[in-house]
Amino acid sequence: MFRPQIKVLDCTVRDGGLINKWQFTDDFVRRIFYALSRAGVDYMEVGYKSSEKYFSRSENGAWKFCSEDDLKRVVGDLDTKMKLSAMADIGRIDPEDILPKKESVLDMIRVACYVKEVDKGINLAHHCLDKGYETTINLMAVSKVLERDLDEALDDLSKSAVPVIYLVDSFGAMYSEQIHFLAKKYMEALPGKELGIHTHNNQQLAFANTIEGIIAGINRLDATLYGMGRGAGNCPLELLLSFLKNPKFDIRPIFEVIQEILIPIKGEIEWGYHIPYMITGILNEHPRSGMKAMSAEKLPDLRKFYEGLLEGTPD
Amino acid sequence: MFRPQIKVLDCTVRDGGLINKWQFTDDFVRRIFYALSRAGVDYMEVGYKSSEKYFSRSENGAWKFCSEDDLKRVVGDLDTKMKLSAMADIGRIDPEDILPKKESVLDMIRVACYVKEVDKGINLAHHCLDKGYETTINLMAVSKVLERDLDEALDDLSKSAVPVIYLVDSFGAMYSEQIHFLAKKYMEALPGKELGIHTHNNQQLAFANTIEGIIAGINRLDATLYGMGRGAGNCPLELLLSFLKNPKFDIRPIFEVIQEILIPIKGEIEWGYHIPYMITGILNEHPRSGMKAMSAEKLPDLRKFYEGLLEGTPD
Repeated sequence: MFRPQIKVLDCTVRDGGLINKWQFTDDFVRRIFYALSRAGVDYMEVGYKSSEKYFSRSENGAWKFCSEDDLKRVVGDLDTKMKLSAMADIGRIDPEDILPKKESVLDMIRVACYVKEVDKGINLAHHCLDKGYETTINLMAVSKVLERDLDEALDDLSKSAVPVIYLVDSFGAMYSEQIHFLAKKYMEALPGKELGIHTHNNQQLAFANTIEGIIAGINRLDATLYGMGRGAGNCPLELLLSFLKNPKFDIRPIFEVIQEILIPIKGEIEWGYHIPYMITGILNEHPRSGMKAMSAEKLPDLRKFYEGLLEGTPD
Repeated sequence: MFRPQIKVLDCTVRDGGLINKWQFTDDFVRRIFYALSRAGVDYMEVGYKSSEKYFSRSENGAWKFCSEDDLKRVVGDLDTKMKLSAMADIGRIDPEDILPKKESVLDMIRVACYVKEVDKGINLAHHCLDKGYETTINLMAVSKVLERDLDEALDDLSKSAVPVIYLVDSFGAMYSEQIHFLAKKYMEALPGKELGIHTHNNQQLAFANTIEGIIAGINRLDATLYGMGRGAGNCPLELLLSFLKNPKFDIRPIFEVIQEILIPIKGEIEWGYHIPYMITGILNEHPRSGMKAMSAEKLPDLRKFYEGLLEGTPD
């Protein structure tokens, strides 16, 4: 699939940091930065932009905050076309803590929000636009909202100045038919805007659903190295770059960095396909119970875990 | 997706045995047999039907041969609707070693063959039909044949008495668009026949491609417990049963048997998503070089492995 409009964003450090509170060495982040640059990836999402008054530096690594000092230490003076992104969550960043673009090495701020807080999300995104950043809104957990509420949120977004809106499968619950249904809905509701897709791998469908998004016309694609990310992880970047036939991408530096740092860290922190994550995915639930099961000393009884979640699902 | 014609075949022991030469305990195979029966799976493929003059019993476990004694020892006298299948490879079974159906606990023999040997495959399949078995032909490695040769093979198959033909992605190289293209081609070339699909997980697309096969109208679906199978493995049965909404399936015994014996054996023998298998998949190559890389004491340089395979690919 070659379409010149397609842009790939790697969020290994941002989404992977949800597993270990962003306790990555500078060397780890720097190697990823260099590998992605050489591979021709369009954006690297380095972490979250959060206010230090809401989270402590003793508990969270640098990439929970993405201060300019931390960013510059890792980015150095490499001559690269790759842009840098950070994600902002509603209520976790004070707008005044976002510097004007000309004082920052960040190029883009992506605002993540739920459907019920979409107006807060639009406010924050407009603030970022005003400060000179590229901006997107990533509408989370849409597999659990009423269609009328989603339609209202999309209507609000269509009237906003935010140019890029993401379809997000937060729980890894969607199949290709849901992706096509929602991509069509977003496209019709958001004329003139670009669409993105961010998937989770609970059912081994993160890459497949990203492909279906591409087929449906989505041009902004999220992926992570070796699929690293919270719970079951995300769409593996190496698979996505191989699928995209765009000659601007070079997959070879990706194999190098996976071998140098991703395979080793997978022995230390856990992500990927496991039955507890699979069960939260098939039941369209937040992965938190799956993460609790996986972090326990002994895996719980899987049949009981499934039956318990089934009973706990509100009707 | 609920369609009453859909039938699921589990080939955990047959495909998984390719990893360890079928060195499974009777208890292992019996637990799978019981769990699949309770889950409502339609067929269990227990292994290969091979002639003992071609393979030694000292190297290969019982399920390379599927003798009646071995089968009966495991199956016992459980009252089950589940049918038993064995696979037969061209040149590895003498037709006279196949008992008449009325002397066997097997219900079905699936003949695996390459496009170039399809006429031998049809001959063997007709022999099995004559002896009273349900029979299929699984046409392997079709991602590497010229379309005219595939069309000729499909034409031969359309004139045969074999009622079920499988679309097989032997190298885990296909995307959804290839699945839809080939499913349509098979359907048009094989009027009146039922189609099946067998996928490999090199690109994490085994389940996704099985779903696309279902959407395209394929009714015979292969899967394995926890995706166990040679190299990257197959479509995970637990994901497939959860996707299929047919009330005849009960996923709970599947979670039990995965916890009891599949998770433990995954610590001993290796399958699943690994970069060497991913690389053979994206290059549409047989997984043997990937298996060699994975069985080495130290993982080879992945970039060089990729570049070497690229250079070695005939133009």
